[in-house]
Amino acid sequence: MIVTCIFLSFTNMKQTIAHILLLLLSWTGLAAQQNVGPAASAATVTSPVVNENNTVTFRLAAPKAKSVAVIGDWTEKAGADIPMKKGKDGVWTLTTAPLSSEMYTYRFVVDGVTVIDPANPFTRRDVNSVFSIFYINGPQADYYQVHDVPHGNVEQVWYHSDRLNMSRRIQVYLPAGYDKARTNYPVLYLLHGSGGDENAWMELGHVSRIMDNLIAQGKAEPMIVVMPNGNSSKQAAPGETSENLSYRPAMTNRLPGIKDGEYELSFPEIVAFIDQHYKTVADKKHRAIAGLSMGGKHSLTISANFPDMFDYIGLFSAGFPKKESQYEAVRDIDAKLKVQAEKGYRLYWVGCGVDDQFDIHDPARAFAEKMQAMGGNTEFHSSSKGHVWSNWRQYLLDFAPKLFK
Amino acid sequence: MIVTCIFLSFTNMKQTIAHILLLLLSWTGLAAQQNVGPAASAATVTSPVVNENNTVTFRLAAPKAKSVAVIGDWTEKAGADIPMKKGKDGVWTLTTAPLSSEMYTYRFVVDGVTVIDPANPFTRRDVNSVFSIFYINGPQADYYQVHDVPHGNVEQVWYHSDRLNMSRRIQVYLPAGYDKARTNYPVLYLLHGSGGDENAWMELGHVSRIMDNLIAQGKAEPMIVVMPNGNSSKQAAPGETSENLSYRPAMTNRLPGIKDGEYELSFPEIVAFIDQHYKTVADKKHRAIAGLSMGGKHSLTISANFPDMFDYIGLFSAGFPKKESQYEAVRDIDAKLKVQAEKGYRLYWVGCGVDDQFDIHDPARAFAEKMQAMGGNTEFHSSSKGHVWSNWRQYLLDFAPKLFK
Repeated sequence: MIVTCIFLSFTNMKQTIAHILLLLLSWTGLAAQQNVGPAASAATVTSPVVNENNTVTFRLAAPKAKSVAVIGDWTEKAGADIPMKKGKDGVWTLTTAPLSSEMYTYRFVVDGVTVIDPANPFTRRDVNSVFSIFYINGPQADYYQVHDVPHGNVEQVWYHSDRLNMSRRIQVYLPAGYDKARTNYPVLYLLHGSGGDENAWMELGHVSRIMDNLIAQGKAEPMIVVMPNGNSSKQAAPGETSENLSYRPAMTNRLPGIKDGEYELSFPEIVAFIDQHYKTVADKKHRAIAGLSMGGKHSLTISANFPDMFDYIGLFSAGFPKKESQYEAVRDIDAKLKVQAEKGYRLYWVGCGVDDQFDIHDPARAFAEKMQAMGGNTEFHSSSKGHVWSNWRQYLLDFAPKLFK
Repeated sequence: MIVTCIFLSFTNMKQTIAHILLLLLSWTGLAAQQNVGPAASAATVTSPVVNENNTVTFRLAAPKAKSVAVIGDWTEKAGADIPMKKGKDGVWTLTTAPLSSEMYTYRFVVDGVTVIDPANPFTRRDVNSVFSIFYINGPQADYYQVHDVPHGNVEQVWYHSDRLNMSRRIQVYLPAGYDKARTNYPVLYLLHGSGGDENAWMELGHVSRIMDNLIAQGKAEPMIVVMPNGNSSKQAAPGETSENLSYRPAMTNRLPGIKDGEYELSFPEIVAFIDQHYKTVADKKHRAIAGLSMGGKHSLTISANFPDMFDYIGLFSAGFPKKESQYEAVRDIDAKLKVQAEKGYRLYWVGCGVDDQFDIHDPARAFAEKMQAMGGNTEFHSSSKGHVWSNWRQYLLDFAPKLFK
């Protein structure tokens, strides 16, 4: 990038010097980036910087801007702007209070426009928005980062759903050593929420790092983790289907088929595909299903409709199916849950944040109590905060070690 | 996202209404995005819009901004700002001239700050910068997009390099049908440039789409494509190593070991790993190696050092090894090339853009002529434009159909 900038700024005036610089650089291996440069100023600041006391300093070179703020997910009221201060050099700065260990997302608001930090190359897309990220090391985020432990492989594979009549994409995590092992593995099916897709648990849930680290520490059994796409009218994540960029991610529940339960009823096709293509132990004892939000509702519905399939069920900030629905998957759901309880399972884990903005904390507790009353082994986990990824990563950290033991 | 915005804006004043709205939405499946909202205005515009005549309209809601421009890679002088015009509604717009078919990258410059388009969820990281993207359909970009053809799976796998003394990550594309096939496949090793990593060819090179489409049309043989990481001191892409976010991508040739040729000499470890773990035809006739820029230099060096390994070599806008280097991999490179030519190969393909900003077009032609003079089957492909991904995707489109036939 620097190379290109030099070239563009010195053209005409100092072309000869630029040429010499380029030639000096060129023999070692050439710049692979396209010559679409950032404003030169963006390259001169380092942002964000996590300081020793776990405060974080943000910097933005914006001498011409009238106002710059940070908007991040660590504030009491998530989504509130925190104004930055302009220095004499035109660089706006802000240092936070010390933050607890977590993976955080943030953006800048530059003269009213909300954007990622141009000095930070690390981003995550969450539904329809792209965020800049950073980590505060410690008990939580250490699990979300890469350590020198054996790494599992990750695969994006396509299966065909006869019921949904299309090829569909799945993310599969295989624990370290899978390729050489002669043993078969248990499987956790992990489902995303509304607005998400098969990539969400990997990108925002940090599944491969969490599983690598839990398994390396002996805290979780080596297991396969399968992350399908829960939007029944879609082949894959936005941008990865034949609709290409015309399928834009949105925080909407209006995707065709999102309510009709066909995805839930097609789930045995996914399980059969996984059992056919991977070294699994293909029985109820060695299968778990969990999901966040809409994926929690899916986990509830799927496991209730197929009571011989999963011995472990996890509902993370789950929605609950509408009882009066005319669709097969959720019809007579209470009767199905009763059958499921009678057939038995090893663990029904229900977690929710007390500040969940959808007011589902108490319904989640009531649901857990209902399952408990029917005699199954049920856990209810009440956490702080609301409907956020920091909770769902924590729920996975709590849930995964309880599986297949 | 909308849900969250409603909640935040109506709190206190209209909490009851908001609550009812939320409850109405909640049963179908809940919002999975964190409550870090974009400025509400960002959600009100659609950008970019590719119009019927292949012009493109960009929009940015920025009523408070003093100046807004687009900076994109379709302009004659790549990297030049194109000013946008402010409407009465505070929305800045620009419509381009008709563009030819391609995948384009762009950003906005808002009061001097270079940022992605907040209304466009689709981005690519190129080295240390994140860009917004769009496609113009047609002969080129149709290959770069997803169509309803059989899709190959993609894997991120870890191998151990004894020579480099670490676990390292590789991206592997497996052609559609691989899992069921009883046949073995040829392998193309595809190498990234300086500042890149094992993800670059997938993300910016669109390898899985190009191969899916070429194979479905019968233009290329079904083949495995292996994309290793060419930075010998690194385990994987920035953010995917145990250095985590402290390893920032940079357009630099100063990474430890980048010049010492140890990566090139360790390459047989990668080939052995692939032959052990995948259904390959493990001989020279069924192996190709190609790379862009630094990866072109690597392809030249690796194939010259191991003349019994590859029957097809592709140099895409390649750098060339420094002849006087003291390192084993590039020592006596001309003598090694002579041996390689004597042993024979099926195709030595060399491509470069006439406007390459590193002045490597004529050296590339001279190199191709040198190889031709030694008797091998050599092709030199001179293209328009410079050191850019649009060229490298085109080179792959040209090169892949010539392999293994």
